[in-house]
Amino acid sequence: MLDAIAEVREELHALHRSLVDNALVSWTSGNVSARVAPDLMLIKPSGVPYDELRPEDLVLCDLSGAAVAGTLRPSSDAASHGYVYRALPEVHGVVHTHSAYATAWAAHGEPIPCVLTAMADEFGGEIPVGPLAPIGGDAIGRGIVETLHGHRSPAVLMRNHGVFAIGDSPRAAVKAAVMCEDVARTVHLARQLGESVALAPQTVDALHARYRNDYGQEEA
Amino acid sequence: MLDAIAEVREELHALHRSLVDNALVSWTSGNVSARVAPDLMLIKPSGVPYDELRPEDLVLCDLSGAAVAGTLRPSSDAASHGYVYRALPEVHGVVHTHSAYATAWAAHGEPIPCVLTAMADEFGGEIPVGPLAPIGGDAIGRGIVETLHGHRSPAVLMRNHGVFAIGDSPRAAVKAAVMCEDVARTVHLARQLGESVALAPQTVDALHARYRNDYGQEEA
Amino acid sequence: MLDAIAEVREELHALHRSLVDNALVSWTSGNVSARVAPDLMLIKPSGVPYDELRPEDLVLCDLSGAAVAGTLRPSSDAASHGYVYRALPEVHGVVHTHSAYATAWAAHGEPIPCVLTAMADEFGGEIPVGPLAPIGGDAIGRGIVETLHGHRSPAVLMRNHGVFAIGDSPRAAVKAAVMCEDVARTVHLARQLGESVALAPQTVDALHARYRNDYGQEEA
Amino acid sequence: MLDAIAEVREELHALHRSLVDNALVSWTSGNVSARVAPDLMLIKPSGVPYDELRPEDLVLCDLSGAAVAGTLRPSSDAASHGYVYRALPEVHGVVHTHSAYATAWAAHGEPIPCVLTAMADEFGGEIPVGPLAPIGGDAIGRGIVETLHGHRSPAVLMRNHGVFAIGDSPRAAVKAAVMCEDVARTVHLARQLGESVALAPQTVDALHARYRNDYGQEEA
Repeated sequence: MLDAIAEVREELHALHRSLVDNALVSWTSGNVSARVAPDLMLIKPSGVPYDELRPEDLVLCDLSGAAVAGTLRPSSDAASHGYVYRALPEVHGVVHTHSAYATAWAAHGEPIPCVLTAMADEFGGEIPVGPLAPIGGDAIGRGIVETLHGHRSPAVLMRNHGVFAIGDSPRAAVKAAVMCEDVARTVHLARQLGESVALAPQTVDALHARYRNDYGQEEA
Repeated sequence: MLDAIAEVREELHALHRSLVDNALVSWTSGNVSARVAPDLMLIKPSGVPYDELRPEDLVLCDLSGAAVAGTLRPSSDAASHGYVYRALPEVHGVVHTHSAYATAWAAHGEPIPCVLTAMADEFGGEIPVGPLAPIGGDAIGRGIVETLHGHRSPAVLMRNHGVFAIGDSPRAAVKAAVMCEDVARTVHLARQLGESVALAPQTVDALHARYRNDYGQEEA
Repeated sequence: MLDAIAEVREELHALHRSLVDNALVSWTSGNVSARVAPDLMLIKPSGVPYDELRPEDLVLCDLSGAAVAGTLRPSSDAASHGYVYRALPEVHGVVHTHSAYATAWAAHGEPIPCVLTAMADEFGGEIPVGPLAPIGGDAIGRGIVETLHGHRSPAVLMRNHGVFAIGDSPRAAVKAAVMCEDVARTVHLARQLGESVALAPQTVDALHARYRNDYGQEEA
Repeated sequence: MLDAIAEVREELHALHRSLVDNALVSWTSGNVSARVAPDLMLIKPSGVPYDELRPEDLVLCDLSGAAVAGTLRPSSDAASHGYVYRALPEVHGVVHTHSAYATAWAAHGEPIPCVLTAMADEFGGEIPVGPLAPIGGDAIGRGIVETLHGHRSPAVLMRNHGVFAIGDSPRAAVKAAVMCEDVARTVHLARQLGESVALAPQTVDALHARYRNDYGQEEA
């Protein structure tokens, strides 16, 4: 298992880099985690700038968010990530960002309406808004899980706070965070032009099903 | 012909890179194709990230959008590109993006009005809006061709979806996609200041004719 | 003189690069010129992409805008640049861009109001709007010169078109173009929040005088 | 002490680079200073472009803003920085920028309301607006100090001008400037969607206390 964890350290390190490359984060404000065992995760250390972060700095934690190895303190969002892994066994990656357009929707407290085929593809409908909850305990994790229940979206806008995105791999979670900001921006720009007609539910369903089944390459 | 196709693979690979460099795409969301024979095209494989894309990965397809060589699945937009090549023999390049400002106009469903001399130059008038159509079949291709008919614009905003741009070469199509986003952004910004006066039709005609005839270098 | 011109070619080449680096241009849409003799200028060739432009490609022209050496066709804005040099002997650099925020003000046809100390510094007041004029002849040049007369601004917004900026060197003209887009953006963003109070004329005068006299390093 | 100052020169040089990398400045428009002794500071020379700035160019000044060594003229904001160091002994770094979104709020003259958990964390409430004051004397420095008094924010929006940010190190001041622009942008984008509910004072207090105490790594 140690070799496998070393590999995930490299991948998570690269994914933190891609948060920067996709302009989702400022200074030290976002983080990615990966489930590396049923009850263990790796997550960014708290307050470490992206350009100083090394693979070995990622903190191995249990799913309460407590470090189980090393000397670095984990992200203050560790308990929230851990709650998601506890509640949703199929999730293997969680991302948190304050990306600007998505966080603007979160501050305003309005779900991003599904007015784009790319949203139907990736999110299967609107991107919902979860509650404002204190940082550091279970409340954010519970808010994420309860809000995503009943939606197909892998991303949620936590009110007055930012984005959490999940996936069956850390890379899938990062993709969801990138696409969340992309559609948050496009729909924000569309809103400034006036109203947009939302896609009909059956159109959303058809697009989402096609995307899930026919997009990308067959698994090897 | 194989050598010629190898050269186009290199060019298409570089043009996909320029979609990224011009900030027209997120993750895997855009694609470029090139006609390489009267009834054959090369197009991006489905779901492959730009930084992993290699020239040899581009998929050779017939104009129904079906792969005729290799093991990678073509872009889910292949049938739409193919329809355009079938209907418009002079077209040798097609580009599809979800670039943010242009897609915002598409979501709102409003043509971009011709209020800039650069739009008159490049588009010869407004950039029109085409129908919302299901992804994967002929409907998008037909919508593109029917909407562009009667316009001088090489770009069309497909409603709730994104941009398709065409050209007599893949590079010309990419240029049209880049300029479409550029003017979509500028006119969006102008709209936020209040109304702009559209150029008079004879002004548009004069600018477009000059641009077609006197701009750039003589062909060797 | 040939050596001096070779040096200006290198400088102009670098300045075209800085238009790209400062995000003022898309594709081939902007240009910089330099006066290299009382009645000669160097200017970008028409339609050449920035990443293919070489110092030796810059076209030596008389002030009617006609090439006097080489085989490349000069920018279609050459006559406009030339008019400015003819009318304003102290000008040694001219820049033209379609930078997005400034061009949005130009499309809307409203001068950028002087609500920032940085505008008072650099522009000594508002950035004025000039007429819509056909591309290729004297009309744009005349519009630039007539509009700047009576303003301290080295930049002008040509209606429905874009920015022209002038300076006593090509570098100073590029600086004016960069600062024009910078303040066009900031004032646009401020406008979306509501009204801003314009600086009082005596405040503008004091800031402008200080900036002209006390800013930067003493000339060697 | 000379060795220590040489180290700070390197750090300040890198921090000026980070103003560019974080898109906070155009041309020569921002500056960072560091207190290097109770009554001495290092600051950017006036009007030097960032890509030409060398560590040895940073100007050693007393806290009136007058150079005490070297031949370069200090930033025209040196007296303002010096005033802050004189009034606030715990401050060891000061940053000034015209970053676009924050300066838009400054032009409009409205504090940035605390509608984001990240604002509560970093700023402990709203980011306040200080007076319009002439550049070059004590007035700006006095405006900064008086406005920050009674706020927990390390950043202030100087009306019609731009941002000043302070910190117990130059790096902390740069962080405050980066986060100021980040939240200025997000709250601006939120405003365009409609109103946002401000965080309750006790929520702000709890977030701020947690961030001050539990965020980042323990000091070694």
